[in-house]
Amino acid sequence: MKKPTLLFFSTLLLSNLLVPLVAATEHTNQAVVSELQNNALKSDLAYKIAESLTVEVGPRLAGSAENALAVDWAEAKLKSLGFDKVYREPVIVPVWQRGEANASVIAPFPQKLVISALGGSVATPPAGLQAKVVRFDTLAALIAADTAQVKDKIVFIDQKTERHQDGSGYGKSVGGRVNGAVEAARKGAVAVLIRSIGTDHDRLAHTGLMHYQEDVPRIPAAALTNPDANQLDAMLRRGQEVTLSLKMSPKSLGNTTTYNVIGEFTGSSKPDEIVLLGAHLDSWDEGTGAIDDAAGVAIVTAAAKMIGELPQRPARTIRVVLFAAEEIGLLGGKAYVAQHANEMAKHYIAAESDFGAGRIYRADVRVNETALSAVWQHLSGLAALNVAQGNNGARGGSEVSLLPTEGVPVASLRQDGSDYFDYHHTPNDTLDKIDPAALAQNVAVYTTFAYQMAQSTLQLRPLPQAQQ
Amino acid sequence: MKKPTLLFFSTLLLSNLLVPLVAATEHTNQAVVSELQNNALKSDLAYKIAESLTVEVGPRLAGSAENALAVDWAEAKLKSLGFDKVYREPVIVPVWQRGEANASVIAPFPQKLVISALGGSVATPPAGLQAKVVRFDTLAALIAADTAQVKDKIVFIDQKTERHQDGSGYGKSVGGRVNGAVEAARKGAVAVLIRSIGTDHDRLAHTGLMHYQEDVPRIPAAALTNPDANQLDAMLRRGQEVTLSLKMSPKSLGNTTTYNVIGEFTGSSKPDEIVLLGAHLDSWDEGTGAIDDAAGVAIVTAAAKMIGELPQRPARTIRVVLFAAEEIGLLGGKAYVAQHANEMAKHYIAAESDFGAGRIYRADVRVNETALSAVWQHLSGLAALNVAQGNNGARGGSEVSLLPTEGVPVASLRQDGSDYFDYHHTPNDTLDKIDPAALAQNVAVYTTFAYQMAQSTLQLRPLPQAQQ
Repeated sequence: MKKPTLLFFSTLLLSNLLVPLVAATEHTNQAVVSELQNNALKSDLAYKIAESLTVEVGPRLAGSAENALAVDWAEAKLKSLGFDKVYREPVIVPVWQRGEANASVIAPFPQKLVISALGGSVATPPAGLQAKVVRFDTLAALIAADTAQVKDKIVFIDQKTERHQDGSGYGKSVGGRVNGAVEAARKGAVAVLIRSIGTDHDRLAHTGLMHYQEDVPRIPAAALTNPDANQLDAMLRRGQEVTLSLKMSPKSLGNTTTYNVIGEFTGSSKPDEIVLLGAHLDSWDEGTGAIDDAAGVAIVTAAAKMIGELPQRPARTIRVVLFAAEEIGLLGGKAYVAQHANEMAKHYIAAESDFGAGRIYRADVRVNETALSAVWQHLSGLAALNVAQGNNGARGGSEVSLLPTEGVPVASLRQDGSDYFDYHHTPNDTLDKIDPAALAQNVAVYTTFAYQMAQSTLQLRPLPQAQQ
Repeated sequence: MKKPTLLFFSTLLLSNLLVPLVAATEHTNQAVVSELQNNALKSDLAYKIAESLTVEVGPRLAGSAENALAVDWAEAKLKSLGFDKVYREPVIVPVWQRGEANASVIAPFPQKLVISALGGSVATPPAGLQAKVVRFDTLAALIAADTAQVKDKIVFIDQKTERHQDGSGYGKSVGGRVNGAVEAARKGAVAVLIRSIGTDHDRLAHTGLMHYQEDVPRIPAAALTNPDANQLDAMLRRGQEVTLSLKMSPKSLGNTTTYNVIGEFTGSSKPDEIVLLGAHLDSWDEGTGAIDDAAGVAIVTAAAKMIGELPQRPARTIRVVLFAAEEIGLLGGKAYVAQHANEMAKHYIAAESDFGAGRIYRADVRVNETALSAVWQHLSGLAALNVAQGNNGARGGSEVSLLPTEGVPVASLRQDGSDYFDYHHTPNDTLDKIDPAALAQNVAVYTTFAYQMAQSTLQLRPLPQAQQ
């Protein structure tokens, strides 16, 4: 992916040299965008929405009773904001409850370790288990190891997560969380502990989804906090065998039904064509899901509301989709794609906000190459918000990443995620981690994007192939 | 207390104008100090000591089995470092075990809250308790409140702790922790929850000692994390009554004996006179006690060791005292004063390191006014370490603060505590919070102080009255 280097200002200057005079409607649209941006930057609507969801609902793991409250909250909130249509669509989800998770060093230096069960993990035997630890730098090192090294041990995958603005450190380390249990169990391990997939130094472990595989024994899986991983590593570096006890009581309790919650402001002249703004309503269960993803819920809801309040509606419908069960495998997104299969051709473009509440610094899109320069012209107003023009390789993020394979154009409005993985999937994901001014900048960007896309006369399809 | 404004450089210049030529021995001492500082800044000895204590012992609450391991560790460590004398002295301490502490909002917005029992708290009934919450801005507001407001409620003291380099925010807010239970119980409250006495935004509560009073019912007392206090406050601001459930199972289990651990490098010409360097060996039980106070243990131990390794010992004995049971009421310090009553006159000066691992930025002392300018001259080498000259109102800190009333001169070598109360008394007090370079600067300062004081020919007594 090429690095963004130019702000939209330069694109705009270039465009003025190369293309015919901007049409009168574009001038009008840019004037509306200016007003939307000004309103968004002054408004605390998004912050109030995020506050409401995190305080009045709080943690809302897909399939939990709290998540059902979140669905009710979302319907009521969208209705109270005056969306033209508000409805829910069912999503079948597995129910998993965290229970307790305790780990202790038995020898050589007895002390407790702080862990958190990974999402979907099985329990230990009720009395717990004890085993020696074998450490690996990475998942790859575990995969390359001899079975004899691993058999009957607790595997410790000790990979650190790098801090980057675009969050790219996560992709490098998250494999241990997702696949560590399977790879460890293949070699006869009794449990797996990973160093948290997080960039912080707090005694708060990062949970997140893990997978089992049909033909491989299911072993308990948990994350150590970064300081606890340091501690375990320091013990192992002394050259002594380290024995841990582990006791975890998560439960899987079959399936239940939850819901995607959808709200629309109907388009004025092309009401069947959709600009989709997504976020996810569910959260992990230990924080209040502020940056993941009350922020996204707040950003897209507030942006749609501000467009819906304009004296004149844009041509296309603005559809806000608050997806269910993102954290446990994009289940709401998959249900949406299935339930809206016949409508996919009517999705003009889609974007999702699911990377915290940091300022947006770059816009990527994925549209037909012939439309690209005109799309950048539509989005030239983003320069005023310090958003750089990116590339045409957007994947769309989270649920919306499922849409390009359905032919739907997407955008990735990239947020500064430098501190996102300090808090992601931990008890520390709380409202105080949201900067109201940065949140408002996000809303301003989404209003710009959504309004221009709802007004555009460009043909954005068919999509180019994804960049690798 | 007057603000420090001058570095030692300026004092030194002034001294050169006002006092006779510096004696040859002072030149020699300053040369030794330079060498000590250079060695200290290059050495990782202190960091290794802190690492050893936090990894090999970890949490070590006074009276616990882990604390007994810490005493053994300390004796072995001082012996292995070649101290001339190493011994332990008994300290009777109460045994308190934390147990579990769970809090939940029952209504109007059901969700868990993160709390930590305050040290010494009683348990709730085994089934827990439920009550409505009444919030106060401060302990003073609680004291001023009507009994009718408080009776049968859970009192929530919601005072924030200010961040200051010298840690002075702590003194302003800690009263709620120490006396909140007594004041709430006087008015019929069933429990007290305080906003953590901490400057962070983490979901980790700050424990610490609290007191009961004989004639007042003992009610459970716990700290909410800052984000949880925000959450509870946000619920209350909605104008609805908030009901909490609280379940805590700490236990008090009588008394046991632990130990002050003492190590000495014997003075060459005045071996019965003592320069005392203190720190405390115990810690709270949820972190590994890195900044509180493995750092102090490491700083004073390493400083003494470096002086002990000099080709020629200084005149006085350097005595390192690793105090027991600081956290639960300076019990080791009180025992030391009692056990060494006959020796108090032989304590030339004392200092304690118990404020984390931040760089020392100022030196305060408490000595006879007639000796003050000469003391500053002794300590002029601290300017090279960016330590400013402070005032003559030092209290000495922690256990050493007990010594001025015994007539013992003291110094307070003040550390930058800007982030100290982010981690203090939380699970987050772990080794990664220590900056090795800052720790080495501390050792350099302590070597300078201890060596010069062990060589000085000044009469430091009698002490001036404490400044208020």
